[in-house]
Amino acid sequence: MNILEMVNSPAQLRALSADKLPLLAEQIRQFLIEKVSQTGGHLAPSLGTVELTLALHYCYNTPEDKIVWDVGHQAYTHKIITGRRDRFDTIRQHGGLSGFPRVSESEYDSFSVGHASTSISAALGLAMGRDILKQKSSVVAVIGDGSMSGGLALEGINNLGSSSTAMTVVLNDNEMSISKNVGALSKYLTNVITDKRYNKLKNSVWDLLGDRSSVSKGIKDVIRTVDRNIKNILIPGKFFEDMGLRYIGPIDGHDLTELIKVFKFLKEGSKEPVLVHVVTKKGKGCPFAEANATKYHGISKFNPQTGDVIKGGQSGPTYSSVFGSTMVELGRENKNLVAITAAMPDGTGLTEFRDTFPSRFFDVGIAEGHAVTFAAGLALKGLRPVVAIYSSFLQRSYDQLMQDVALDKTNVIFCLDRAGLVGDDGPTHHGNFDISYLCTIPGAVVMAPSSEKELRDMMFTALEYTGGPIFIRYPRGNGPGTPCDKPFYKIDIGNANTVKKGSQAALISLGDMYGDVCEVHKLLSDQGIVATLVDARFAKPLNEAFYEEIFANHSVIATFENNTIAGGFGSSVLALSAQLEHRPKVLRFGLPDRFVSHGDVIKLRAEIGLAPETMAGKICGELKSSIQNLAPSRG
Amino acid sequence: MNILEMVNSPAQLRALSADKLPLLAEQIRQFLIEKVSQTGGHLAPSLGTVELTLALHYCYNTPEDKIVWDVGHQAYTHKIITGRRDRFDTIRQHGGLSGFPRVSESEYDSFSVGHASTSISAALGLAMGRDILKQKSSVVAVIGDGSMSGGLALEGINNLGSSSTAMTVVLNDNEMSISKNVGALSKYLTNVITDKRYNKLKNSVWDLLGDRSSVSKGIKDVIRTVDRNIKNILIPGKFFEDMGLRYIGPIDGHDLTELIKVFKFLKEGSKEPVLVHVVTKKGKGCPFAEANATKYHGISKFNPQTGDVIKGGQSGPTYSSVFGSTMVELGRENKNLVAITAAMPDGTGLTEFRDTFPSRFFDVGIAEGHAVTFAAGLALKGLRPVVAIYSSFLQRSYDQLMQDVALDKTNVIFCLDRAGLVGDDGPTHHGNFDISYLCTIPGAVVMAPSSEKELRDMMFTALEYTGGPIFIRYPRGNGPGTPCDKPFYKIDIGNANTVKKGSQAALISLGDMYGDVCEVHKLLSDQGIVATLVDARFAKPLNEAFYEEIFANHSVIATFENNTIAGGFGSSVLALSAQLEHRPKVLRFGLPDRFVSHGDVIKLRAEIGLAPETMAGKICGELKSSIQNLAPSRG
Repeated sequence: MNILEMVNSPAQLRALSADKLPLLAEQIRQFLIEKVSQTGGHLAPSLGTVELTLALHYCYNTPEDKIVWDVGHQAYTHKIITGRRDRFDTIRQHGGLSGFPRVSESEYDSFSVGHASTSISAALGLAMGRDILKQKSSVVAVIGDGSMSGGLALEGINNLGSSSTAMTVVLNDNEMSISKNVGALSKYLTNVITDKRYNKLKNSVWDLLGDRSSVSKGIKDVIRTVDRNIKNILIPGKFFEDMGLRYIGPIDGHDLTELIKVFKFLKEGSKEPVLVHVVTKKGKGCPFAEANATKYHGISKFNPQTGDVIKGGQSGPTYSSVFGSTMVELGRENKNLVAITAAMPDGTGLTEFRDTFPSRFFDVGIAEGHAVTFAAGLALKGLRPVVAIYSSFLQRSYDQLMQDVALDKTNVIFCLDRAGLVGDDGPTHHGNFDISYLCTIPGAVVMAPSSEKELRDMMFTALEYTGGPIFIRYPRGNGPGTPCDKPFYKIDIGNANTVKKGSQAALISLGDMYGDVCEVHKLLSDQGIVATLVDARFAKPLNEAFYEEIFANHSVIATFENNTIAGGFGSSVLALSAQLEHRPKVLRFGLPDRFVSHGDVIKLRAEIGLAPETMAGKICGELKSSIQNLAPSRG
Repeated sequence: MNILEMVNSPAQLRALSADKLPLLAEQIRQFLIEKVSQTGGHLAPSLGTVELTLALHYCYNTPEDKIVWDVGHQAYTHKIITGRRDRFDTIRQHGGLSGFPRVSESEYDSFSVGHASTSISAALGLAMGRDILKQKSSVVAVIGDGSMSGGLALEGINNLGSSSTAMTVVLNDNEMSISKNVGALSKYLTNVITDKRYNKLKNSVWDLLGDRSSVSKGIKDVIRTVDRNIKNILIPGKFFEDMGLRYIGPIDGHDLTELIKVFKFLKEGSKEPVLVHVVTKKGKGCPFAEANATKYHGISKFNPQTGDVIKGGQSGPTYSSVFGSTMVELGRENKNLVAITAAMPDGTGLTEFRDTFPSRFFDVGIAEGHAVTFAAGLALKGLRPVVAIYSSFLQRSYDQLMQDVALDKTNVIFCLDRAGLVGDDGPTHHGNFDISYLCTIPGAVVMAPSSEKELRDMMFTALEYTGGPIFIRYPRGNGPGTPCDKPFYKIDIGNANTVKKGSQAALISLGDMYGDVCEVHKLLSDQGIVATLVDARFAKPLNEAFYEEIFANHSVIATFENNTIAGGFGSSVLALSAQLEHRPKVLRFGLPDRFVSHGDVIKLRAEIGLAPETMAGKICGELKSSIQNLAPSRG
């Protein structure tokens, strides 16, 4: 029987008898594995939350009741049973479903997510709003143990616990976020789970409470009080009780019966902040994903039987892997080099460094703010910290970059992976703003390599530099395949690289736009225009003398960046040109001043006017009109 | 006997016998009250930490041992006894001592601070750096209970607790940060302090441990184990013990003997992360400051005998007070209006709103990230949240603004007080970057009023607006005194206000630069130049048609903003002008691309080239050269 096809909404789910749900869970798992094998996506997290998702929608009256998913990479089952099953094979594709909950996509998506640790704060807003408007509904935040280490989640807990608002936090504890979990809270949770004394007792108390029909309210209150007092001694959830949350758990997150018992109880009776501690297994029900949850956290296309990844046609190494191997190389030379990641040792390419220099490697968990301030402390002791954080996640640390690093010109090196458009993960993961927000920081040096080799040289340059914070930003995925076997080359700070000298137009490329800009150069050549081609390398500072010469010798300047035009590299070039008497026309190519959707990067670039043909056409047009404008004074 | 004059360094302090310290503390208090009464400054926090500071420097071997102050407004005693007593009357004055610890000011200042919640992360960096370098020294972070609610501090605790690094966190618990403390952690701390059972027991255990001479190591270990197990039942510090920190406390923070006993013990023997819970009283020893610690937290000049504030010569109301009264006015009309502050109900002017509409007011504590995401949740329920956060502190929420508000065009209103140069508090408190970082946010509306009346109209406009996040930024201090008795006026989004039509030059003023720009206008008039004068009102979006007309009719455009030039308002105007065939010269006046020091705002502005005479001179010069350039084609 295919139950899955009968469930096109949570209402239809709720019409099923509970004994059908295990079969439904099984069918959802098969569906997930089959579909994600074709599109790629967040497999392991979603496999871990099948029962949890079913139980929540089964017990709560969604969409009036609100479920807020943290990060949202575990919400595939939620999408499938909220009327999006038919479109599920479009997930993360251009024009298709988002890989994350989106308010604009479904009324069942209560909050748009992608970054970690937001769910408790957002849900508390929904709950307080409900109270002010005197509405009756339930609000549930679902947060993983990894996200719980983020300061925002802890701020949320601190505020929730001091409120008297009815709201439930489901702590989805899989003892492993994206990579091995870190932090004291994580250790604490493990202790809670393994405390057998308490678990035994809890079960008896819970059985009494759960069997609601046979117990009067008065007796239940007594049991609750006893339960709480026992906890105060035997402990597990004491941490959360200290924070003002009623603690329930740990609960087997794959046991539908127990989950439904708890959520029905809370839905009907709870009027206070509650934390339900649910233990799940990432990749559950899929042997290869269970065995290697890190690999199958976010995965590209794979063989659904074997789990073997289907390789794409790209040739060069990824920027992440070049970063990783270069870190090891530099780490051997410089004993003061230390590396910091915020829960992304695999994603950033730091695993080899971690294994080679364990005492000089720090995974601080999802805690980007701490990563930056901690690095400043290390640097003040004379160490050379390299902080590796994805571009869009470093947005969390803007104030720490400004106050804790730049104010004292502290020597911290930042390597921002996933800069610019990232593709399938969409606007929460695009690193579209880093050049703009980093260039507001006084004294910052901001670089972007055009190739793997340049990334290596920039890392070397950064380590030689001792003038304050220095940033290197590079894209997701593969480089052009430039050989990396040459010795390191130290780049003069601010100096661009003129690749070809030409006239009329100067094409100034920053970072990974270089390949497309070469294409533009060729297209212009085909039109008889031999443009100057510059690899800018630096977004800040700019070598003024170099640029002034460029401005003096070209009537049209075109800048290219994989970053928002607003406040970006092109704007800095423009500002420099504006000081001159004779100002060339500056065309700025970059990302538009809006959030760019998800999907294939080439399609996205075409959509926003960054196809090489489009850009070459605009430059041609501008050259023609600038010649026309010059005509009268020449005549 | 004046002991204070004998203490010009911590080494001299350490040479004193301990029984001299209470007298020294008394003399420091007199010194503090006298000096701060003349300069203004953070009186109450520093009065609360006199004994704590003396005990720390007495026991630890500073500057080899590191003391990291959180925020730093409590560090005046630290400055006085580390060789800066003679210059203390220059504190917060232009060219004088900073009001906060600064690495560049003294080797005793281990970390530059100003924003809250950084100390644990920074100190952990210093401690881990020490370990890697195999050095021997102690690291102590001193953090207030208010700062502890910040996500960064909680991330720091989470990482510290899972490390095995020797480091001490002194939790300076005064049950009141800047305003009444909030959050579950705060409630928890209060419970800890008042748990008499435990305190009695603790004292006995501590006495045994403290009397080191008479007890062997083996016995001490037994006592420690017993102590910890008793705690596990009786509780107070269990929260911190769960987080992996050894908990010691609560301790009377004004009892020098007890403080010295604890710190000596830790200095000599501790090899693990420890939290020392110290209870102090803000304003201690100064009756009027004790009675009203909020008022005397940060205070202007006052009479040292009575505490009466010495009023300055300014006439108009402060922007904060106009914001506050307008919130109450709008709140009466619109029942969905809610207000959120991050621990600054007084500073932002929200106390009247809080008292009038308590159920629609939220003080989330020092937790700016949470404030923003929480507001997004409220807005999604249909409420109209106004988030009031100082400009420089909103930097903490850059990612939340982007991801949790702007991505869905959620209707949250942000009111940023203390935008631009704030004066005495210096670079950690200047709000110099908001226009730049806010303008990177797709779809954001960014406004700045030129007067109190315009602030009111902008608040009204924001409440009428339902297109997504909208920001109003205004400066610290008094407005020009524009009457506020007119009915609200709704401003068209993006529309500037042409105050005077002229020719040749257009002066485009954003926000509080308006007074100075009028002065520039007058100076130009005196030279026979009748410039156009525009109150821009919006930094984003810009009304393109309006600006194109301005560009077409003036050869020189001058923009003025109390914000960094990098990526600011002037850069947006410049970018708009760059699209045209005939591009006017754009002069951008604003704050330089470096951190601006502390001191009197008028002096600071003069120093950075923003005196009206300087600006008028530059515009004159530019007009002359533009006329010369035009001459050949005219001739």
